[in-house]
Amino acid sequence: MSNFRTIWTTEDRYVEVIDQRKLPHEFVVVKLETYDDAEEAIKDMTVRGAPLIGATAAYGIYLAVREMIEDELDGSFLDQAFSDLRASRPTAVNLFWALDKMRNALDNCEGDFLKCAWEAAAAIVEEDVETCRMIGVHGLPLIEEISNRKKGEVVNILTHCNAGMLGCVEWGTITSPIYQAMQKGLKVHVWVDETRPRNQGSNLTCYELTKHGVPHTLIVDNAGGHLMQHGMVDMVIVGTDRTTRNGDVANKIGTYLKALAAKDNNIPFYVALPSTTLDMTIRDGLKEIPIEERDQDEVRYMIGKGPSGKIEPVLICPETTQASNYGFDVTPAHLVTKIITERGICAASEEGLLELFPEYK
Amino acid sequence: MSNFRTIWTTEDRYVEVIDQRKLPHEFVVVKLETYDDAEEAIKDMTVRGAPLIGATAAYGIYLAVREMIEDELDGSFLDQAFSDLRASRPTAVNLFWALDKMRNALDNCEGDFLKCAWEAAAAIVEEDVETCRMIGVHGLPLIEEISNRKKGEVVNILTHCNAGMLGCVEWGTITSPIYQAMQKGLKVHVWVDETRPRNQGSNLTCYELTKHGVPHTLIVDNAGGHLMQHGMVDMVIVGTDRTTRNGDVANKIGTYLKALAAKDNNIPFYVALPSTTLDMTIRDGLKEIPIEERDQDEVRYMIGKGPSGKIEPVLICPETTQASNYGFDVTPAHLVTKIITERGICAASEEGLLELFPEYK
Repeated sequence: MSNFRTIWTTEDRYVEVIDQRKLPHEFVVVKLETYDDAEEAIKDMTVRGAPLIGATAAYGIYLAVREMIEDELDGSFLDQAFSDLRASRPTAVNLFWALDKMRNALDNCEGDFLKCAWEAAAAIVEEDVETCRMIGVHGLPLIEEISNRKKGEVVNILTHCNAGMLGCVEWGTITSPIYQAMQKGLKVHVWVDETRPRNQGSNLTCYELTKHGVPHTLIVDNAGGHLMQHGMVDMVIVGTDRTTRNGDVANKIGTYLKALAAKDNNIPFYVALPSTTLDMTIRDGLKEIPIEERDQDEVRYMIGKGPSGKIEPVLICPETTQASNYGFDVTPAHLVTKIITERGICAASEEGLLELFPEYK
Repeated sequence: MSNFRTIWTTEDRYVEVIDQRKLPHEFVVVKLETYDDAEEAIKDMTVRGAPLIGATAAYGIYLAVREMIEDELDGSFLDQAFSDLRASRPTAVNLFWALDKMRNALDNCEGDFLKCAWEAAAAIVEEDVETCRMIGVHGLPLIEEISNRKKGEVVNILTHCNAGMLGCVEWGTITSPIYQAMQKGLKVHVWVDETRPRNQGSNLTCYELTKHGVPHTLIVDNAGGHLMQHGMVDMVIVGTDRTTRNGDVANKIGTYLKALAAKDNNIPFYVALPSTTLDMTIRDGLKEIPIEERDQDEVRYMIGKGPSGKIEPVLICPETTQASNYGFDVTPAHLVTKIITERGICAASEEGLLELFPEYK
């Protein structure tokens, strides 16, 4: 689809990622040479988005194996790498999924340990690409249906945060149906929520939609309700970091508010997810999903390109004012119209999920 | 209450206001010497907040009268001033109220025309102070009731935008009950919505709460739903720029989303308003209240204090990305628990409003 990915390997068998904190203003590549580099990249949000965090953690384990072998360390080093990477972000469930997959590959490795780690990480990346492509295949008809109903007029899609290719490896989750709709010649337009405090919408979603030529308009997070009240939104699609057995979804803070507005205005609210974000061990998202609290300065300061052309933070409140910074909120299943996965579309409920994923019965 | 007001007159009988665009980082006073100055101050948001806009427009008329007399202009100059000031902001209804009041005072003026204008403007200002004080008198028991129910524990109040003293002359609308609760020794804590795109919350509400020693925490506009889901909000109070006969309220964009979340979590949602914001000539807020669209750069850039200490804008999206910037949204009456006015508390409905304001029957 696009001509770049968000994570790739180098000739000397290290890993490179885009420093997403500098987008859209600068395109800077960061080389990861140790598991510590990978852990830091996840923690400081050089990489972000559940699938990309998983992919980065997987390569983090590969790098740890490489360090272990090159520096002749014992297995406790690798155990430490697993536990450090597992603790790097608390909410994204496919971080844990990727690490479990790596552990499994290493436990069952016959022969070259480093090769097993390399191949397992690569497989996780390729699986993500295919998963996202399939989410697009299944999500496309939802856009097509509205396009047909509107007789080919522009379909207006609202999204929150970045569940695009930049949060994945390629295609993205919510952007996959959109990119495929574009390829099919449908007219689409995306309302991009700024997504304070980290501005993944204005920084990342706007960036990748620009790169792919998708018509879009930036809005503040406050605006979606008004647009929906006035018929300017045909559908909402968001991603998720963790989905419970009941169909509750944790996503970027503010998602819940958009779901309420969509419900109030009879607008379909779709959640696009790779099944790696399913956490079938829990039911009640509000009670059981831990919500990450992040540094208050993400709220107190805003980062952007200043008049001098440098990327810098500006303080937006009195020096002494304290801030609170919860990273996610939970949208209860009853506000979710449908869930779009790589296997198809289902209701946001245990029954719905089990139809597509009977292995969890 | 506090030791400063937001608009005052000088010894040489001009008018001064605070340049609120520079708060909280700098306290800069702007002198208004012509009606054009007043019009600009309203347009460029040097002053903002429905009551303060009204007060500034009233003094704008006084300044126009003064110019007319000093420069020996004819009445068409004054007519132009009325029409220019009326067009300075489209949503705030008590801009129109204040101008009508000035017109009436001038039409009925016997004797010194300039003196009539001066006194009418001063009366509008003093009326606002008393109105806001009374909103506090009536709103205080709502906070007290929660404080009693929580056995004196902290009452957590969420607010959006700035309907504080900075939007009025003194006391503020939503802050008046809060300041009076503080004076009475009740424990309160305010969750302050940042309020993108203009950040009236982080810039102004945080500033005045700091000045008055009110405990508060800054949050992004996305966070309120999560806080409400987790029992961290006891009540929501917001202001309004225009209230219809049915009790629909237009307020800063994003208010509607908070009202939906309050309803979903059984949290009282109060709207504090001076009766000057009532527009009893219209009923359906969604259909009948014109919503101002503002410059897209308010969304594309964020203004704050940069590393050099200067107040400057930073670009937060790709250079080519366009933005949409609706200034207000409408919260339907059924989401409003009660309306707090200077005459008392009532239901957000025609019946409720007519009980307190029978003159509109």
